[in-house]
Amino acid sequence: MCLLKLPIAHEKTLSWVDAFFIATSAATVTGLATVDPGSTFTLFGEIVILFLIQVGGLGVMSFASLVVIMMGRKISIKQRVLMQEALNQPSIGGVIRLVRNLFVFSISIQIIAIFFLSLRLVPDFGVSKGIYYSIFHVISAYNNAGFSLWSDGLMGYVGDPMVNIVISFLFITGGIGFTVLVDIWVSRSWKKLSLHTRVMLLSTLILNIVAILFFYLFEFNNPKTIGMLSGAEQFWASYFQGVTPRTAGFNSIDMTAINPDTSLLMILLMFVGAGSTSTGGGIKLTTFVVIIFTVAAFLKGKDDTVVMKRTIRNAVVYRALAITTISILFIFAALLIITYVQKDTSFMVIVFEVVSAFGTVGLSMGLTPDLTVIGKIVICVVMVFGKLGPLTLAFSLAKQTKDNIRYPDGEVFTG
Amino acid sequence: MCLLKLPIAHEKTLSWVDAFFIATSAATVTGLATVDPGSTFTLFGEIVILFLIQVGGLGVMSFASLVVIMMGRKISIKQRVLMQEALNQPSIGGVIRLVRNLFVFSISIQIIAIFFLSLRLVPDFGVSKGIYYSIFHVISAYNNAGFSLWSDGLMGYVGDPMVNIVISFLFITGGIGFTVLVDIWVSRSWKKLSLHTRVMLLSTLILNIVAILFFYLFEFNNPKTIGMLSGAEQFWASYFQGVTPRTAGFNSIDMTAINPDTSLLMILLMFVGAGSTSTGGGIKLTTFVVIIFTVAAFLKGKDDTVVMKRTIRNAVVYRALAITTISILFIFAALLIITYVQKDTSFMVIVFEVVSAFGTVGLSMGLTPDLTVIGKIVICVVMVFGKLGPLTLAFSLAKQTKDNIRYPDGEVFTG
Ligand SMILES: [K+]
Ligand SMILES: [K+]
Repeated sequence: MCLLKLPIAHEKTLSWVDAFFIATSAATVTGLATVDPGSTFTLFGEIVILFLIQVGGLGVMSFASLVVIMMGRKISIKQRVLMQEALNQPSIGGVIRLVRNLFVFSISIQIIAIFFLSLRLVPDFGVSKGIYYSIFHVISAYNNAGFSLWSDGLMGYVGDPMVNIVISFLFITGGIGFTVLVDIWVSRSWKKLSLHTRVMLLSTLILNIVAILFFYLFEFNNPKTIGMLSGAEQFWASYFQGVTPRTAGFNSIDMTAINPDTSLLMILLMFVGAGSTSTGGGIKLTTFVVIIFTVAAFLKGKDDTVVMKRTIRNAVVYRALAITTISILFIFAALLIITYVQKDTSFMVIVFEVVSAFGTVGLSMGLTPDLTVIGKIVICVVMVFGKLGPLTLAFSLAKQTKDNIRYPDGEVFTG
Repeated sequence: MCLLKLPIAHEKTLSWVDAFFIATSAATVTGLATVDPGSTFTLFGEIVILFLIQVGGLGVMSFASLVVIMMGRKISIKQRVLMQEALNQPSIGGVIRLVRNLFVFSISIQIIAIFFLSLRLVPDFGVSKGIYYSIFHVISAYNNAGFSLWSDGLMGYVGDPMVNIVISFLFITGGIGFTVLVDIWVSRSWKKLSLHTRVMLLSTLILNIVAILFFYLFEFNNPKTIGMLSGAEQFWASYFQGVTPRTAGFNSIDMTAINPDTSLLMILLMFVGAGSTSTGGGIKLTTFVVIIFTVAAFLKGKDDTVVMKRTIRNAVVYRALAITTISILFIFAALLIITYVQKDTSFMVIVFEVVSAFGTVGLSMGLTPDLTVIGKIVICVVMVFGKLGPLTLAFSLAKQTKDNIRYPDGEVFTG
C-alpha cells in the first residue's frame, strides 16, 4: 500500500484511502477499483498490484496446500485416512510432492496462456506492450483477481473467441479449487474422483449453463448491452458474463447498463462464489449445493441430505447453513452502513457492490469510484471477510472448544 | 372474492385481479392493497373484508389450537408430556377448556379496545361512524391485518397516545402467538413460564426497543417523515413504526418518504415477523433468536446453541436454519420475477413489497397499486406462502417419510 502511494507508482494523484482500497482489492484478488488502474498507475505501480495479486492468490494456494498437508499429518486419524483415500497417496511425502507438482502445473498453464493471449494482443499493441498485457491479464485471470488495464475491462474483446476462451479457462481452472485439481491430478478417471470433485465439476457445469441462458434471456433485447451485437458476439458475451460472476470479475459488457433482473441473477452467482480452497470468495459452490439438496430433502420430509447417492453428514449440512446465514447477516450489516452513509445511491447498485466484494468478484455497477471514505472502508472489510471468512470459519470449527456446562434441553417453536 | 366483485360491494370500478388481490390480502391478514379500501368499497364491501380478516385470523387461531390439542393427544408420548408440562394441565379436557377460555379472552380484549378507541373516534366522526371505525380497526389490529379505512393509514393520529397505545397493544398481543398467551394464562409467574414464552417476551421487548431507537436515529432529521413533528409526536411515531413492521402493517407516517437505511431495517423486521402460532407471517421471532444464538455459538466454536441456559436441540436449530434458507430462496425467486416484469421500479421498493407480503405485514413504499397483473399474482402467492409456509413446513417435518435407502456418507468441503 505504501509502495502504491510512492510518487513513482502513480501518474495521477492518489489519496491514501484509494491506495489502501486498491491494495486490499488486489491482495484479496477482488478487482474492485476506486480509480482506473490502467490510467492511474505507472508501470511500477501496476507491477506492485500484480505482486499483491500473486501474493493474495498464492497465499490462498499455500494455505490450501497447508490444509492438505496438515490433514494428512496432524489432524485425526479418521481425517488422515479420508485424505489419503482422496489423494490415493500412501505417505505424507507423496502429498508434499503432489502439492509441488501442482504448483508446477499452475505455472505451466499460465505460461501457455500468456503465449496464446500474446497471439491476439501483440498484433494490437506491439511486442513489449502486448506481452506485458498478456502477462498481467493471465495472472489476474488465473488468480481470479479481475483487474484489467483497460478502463472498460474486456469490452474491446467482447466477441473475440481467443480472449474469451483463454481468460475464462484460466479463471474457471483457478476458481474450481485446489482440492479438485489435486483430485483430478491423481485420479484421472470419473469413477475414482471424490464426491467433492464430482459435485464441483457437475454443479459448475450446470450453474454456468443456467447462468448463460438466463443472461441471454434477460439481456438479448437490451440495446445498451448485447442487443446491438451480432449473433456470435451475443453468444460470447452471454457465455463470458454467465461464467464470470462466480468470482472472476472481468466484464466484457457495460455493467452499468444491465437490467435489474440480470443484476439480481448476478448477485446470486456472486454470493455463491467459487470452489472451496480456490482463490475465490462467496459461500462456495458446494455450500450452495448442500443447501439446495438440504432444502429439497426438507421439503420432502426426509432426514438425510443425499447428493449423488451419498449422504452428507449432519455436521456438514449444519456448517453449510451456518456459513450462509452468517454471510447473509454480515452482508446485511454492510448494506445497512452503506445505505446510511450513501442515501442517494440506488439500492440495487449498493447490493451489487457489497455482494461483489463478499464474493471477491470485482464486478461493479459503477459505485466503486463514488464511494465515500466510510463506504470504501466498509467494502474493504467485506472483501477481507469474503476472502478469509468461510475458510477461517471452517478452521474455527475444527478446533471446537468444548463447553464444560451442558445445559438441559429447552423447547422453542420455530414454525 | 366474488362478493367483493358484486356491484353493491364497490363504489369505484374494480378489476377481477384487484378483487382477488384484496381478498387474498384480507384472508392472509396482510393488508397490502392495490386499491384504496376506504374509498373503493361500500359498507357492504368493507364488511366482507372484515369477515375475511376474521376468518383468516381465526383460521390461524383454530389451527393453532388444533395443534395444541393434537400435541396433547396424538403425537408422541414425549411431546404429550412436554405439552402437559407447558400447559400445567392434567388432561385433554383441560386443554380444550383452556382454548375456549382463550377465545373468550380474545373477544373481551377486542370489546374493551373498541370502547377505548371509540372515545377518540366518536368525537371525530360522530357516533355510528366512530363506533364502526373503531370496530374495523380493532379487528384489523388484533388480527394483525393492517387494513385501514383511511387512505393515509393512521397518519392522522401520528401523535395521538390513545390510538397508538390501543392499536399497538392489540397487534402486539395478537402477534406474540397463541402458545405464549396460553402459557401466560396458565403459569402467571415468570419462573413457571416455558422457555418459549420467556424467549418470546424478552426478544419482543429487546427487538422493539432496538427498532424504535434505530428508526428515530435514521429518521429524526428527515423532514418528510418525522423531522418536522414535535418531540412527543416524534416519540409516538418512532414507537409505532418500530413495533409495526413485525407483522401489523399499520403506518402512522408516509412510508414512501422513509430513508433507505430505514427501509432496510424494516425489511429485516418484516422478514423476522411475529411469534410462532400467531396470525403473523415471517420466519418468526423464535426462529430468528435461535439463528442469532446458533451463529454466536458457531463463531465461538461451541457445539450447542444455548438460549437462557437451555440447550436448543439440534433438530430445532436445523429447522430454524432450513426455514430461513427456504424463505430467502423463495423471496429471491419472487424478486427475480418482479424485477423481470417491472424493470423500471426501484429495487428497494420491490424488496420492501415482497418481504412485506412474506411477513404478511402490509407496509408498502407505494408499489402495490402500480403492480402489473403478474406482479399482483406473485405478491398473492408470496402472501399465501408467508401465511402458510413455516407452519406447513413444521408439519411436513412432523410426518417425516423415512427413506428406505440409507446411502453411505460422502464428504464435501464447504468452507
Ligand atoms: K475477482
Ligand atoms: K398485516
